Amino acid sequence: MSVTGVGEFGLIGRVTARLSYGPTCLLGPGDDAALVTAPDGRVAASTDVLVEGRHFRRDWSGARDVGHRAAAANLADIAAMGAAPTALLVALCAPPDLPASWAEELADGLGAEAASVGASVVGGDMSASPTLTVAVTALGDLAGRAPVLRSGARPGDVLALSGRTGWAAAGYTVLSRGFRTPKLLVEAYRRPQVPYRAGPEAAAAGATSMIDVSDGLLADLGHVARASGVALDVRRDAFEVPRQMGDAAQALGVDPYTWILTGGDDHALAATFPAGTELPPGWRPVGAVTDGEGVTVDGRAWEGPAGWDHFR
Amino acid sequence: MSVTGVGEFGLIGRVTARLSYGPTCLLGPGDDAALVTAPDGRVAASTDVLVEGRHFRRDWSGARDVGHRAAAANLADIAAMGAAPTALLVALCAPPDLPASWAEELADGLGAEAASVGASVVGGDMSASPTLTVAVTALGDLAGRAPVLRSGARPGDVLALSGRTGWAAAGYTVLSRGFRTPKLLVEAYRRPQVPYRAGPEAAAAGATSMIDVSDGLLADLGHVARASGVALDVRRDAFEVPRQMGDAAQALGVDPYTWILTGGDDHALAATFPAGTELPPGWRPVGAVTDGEGVTVDGRAWEGPAGWDHFR
Repeated sequence: MSVTGVGEFGLIGRVTARLSYGPTCLLGPGDDAALVTAPDGRVAASTDVLVEGRHFRRDWSGARDVGHRAAAANLADIAAMGAAPTALLVALCAPPDLPASWAEELADGLGAEAASVGASVVGGDMSASPTLTVAVTALGDLAGRAPVLRSGARPGDVLALSGRTGWAAAGYTVLSRGFRTPKLLVEAYRRPQVPYRAGPEAAAAGATSMIDVSDGLLADLGHVARASGVALDVRRDAFEVPRQMGDAAQALGVDPYTWILTGGDDHALAATFPAGTELPPGWRPVGAVTDGEGVTVDGRAWEGPAGWDHFR
Repeated sequence: MSVTGVGEFGLIGRVTARLSYGPTCLLGPGDDAALVTAPDGRVAASTDVLVEGRHFRRDWSGARDVGHRAAAANLADIAAMGAAPTALLVALCAPPDLPASWAEELADGLGAEAASVGASVVGGDMSASPTLTVAVTALGDLAGRAPVLRSGARPGDVLALSGRTGWAAAGYTVLSRGFRTPKLLVEAYRRPQVPYRAGPEAAAAGATSMIDVSDGLLADLGHVARASGVALDVRRDAFEVPRQMGDAAQALGVDPYTWILTGGDDHALAATFPAGTELPPGWRPVGAVTDGEGVTVDGRAWEGPAGWDHFR
């Protein structure tokens, strides 16, 4: 049955019945607003929107996948401040003929990804629209720590990474060439594996700056370099090309480092730490912070394609 | 220049440069997430989405108006919990040919409406989309009070209203018949006048239930009746028909009580109070809570058109 057949309130009922609510959710869907714990006395908040045809395709990703990815994009932003995610709110704009089951499975994916990090889907809104759109807001708690901004990197700091890059971009390239395998790459595109806990752990370890890698490593490091007034240099040999990625790159005629250095949507976390910091689990050094400006790879400008502009 | 011409980051820069940030905003746009005060240790959160052609038309409302209305719809949900709004986050999905000035003026409207109640636009996201869409999330603080839910109305309570109903619906009817006047009604549709402060004041005065009237008074009271397991009766003579509304109703051949009792989008607040409560300023009694179920007008079922389902 379509969302129109079920109706707005019917669909909200079906979706909320599938969700479960963790201890951060004091009041879930069904009233004018939800109520979420904010023990720190401050709340971190971020919004990301996914538009069909631009951020996802229904023939490439199932509804659950889109839910996972929409949640991940937002939860990663919270983690990148050093905060622990507490809640998601979701606005779903659905074409009238969208199967109600698609909305239900989207909620399953959103809920599962949120639950994986102790957060809950606490509220949302639905409307008909010609364009299938999922707008998500994530909330999080800093547990008394200072937020880790993009602007705190200092010359002499170590540049480090938690999580992986290039996998989602490789999966995207595979799909866009009409293939459905290698499964490992396609699945990486469909459901990013985000090192959420690495965010608060980096904050606790004294990270001076941090960012969620969503537009591509070099593009996002560019934000850090600009905000901090420093130069960042990435060591290419800090990144091994995984076998499956290398094989696919060769088959498709792509330099795998284009995926690794400029591919978005894996939601790795990049951070800088004072020299000598013992990096928390899962973090590895990938470069250095120096005086100057801009981002280089092994000391040279990157000549390949750059990051992503959602209007271009 | 269009949003495509300006580019995603250019547009974000233009928009955020126009915003101002009040004391609830600890960190505004420009990092992975914003940071907002939540002194209560809990945060109220609500999301509402506006889709062009469904919730607004660009030939009926200017961008500033849409901003005011999108903000109002969300801020009213926070007020209806008894909370004071602190922040808005906004996802804008824009057709590539949207003038950048439209996005800028939207931000002006969102910011002005938020500022009127002490809140700030603290973050957001932008994407291209075939369908102009504005998804807003509002946050708020309960200042130590219990949230006022839809489920707390008890037989014997007084049903009360703050703010006005029917004005936005009258303006909508005027516009949909091709007229641009009376100005007063059209402006009421374009920019609702929401009694934000009445929400926390009702909570402080002991309101047992509260709701934002967004889908129409009778429809929204239906939510309260169901959630509380009570019947609600509205006195029709508690509502005077304002002269301008009466004149327009006569000219258009509409029963003005259809607007007043079933028209949405003015974002009045409806609440129930224990009998004998001295109602806070701006609240007036409009009916009673009794044993039973459903919503009646002067003891009888309402025969006119019902509320609004966004998929139908």
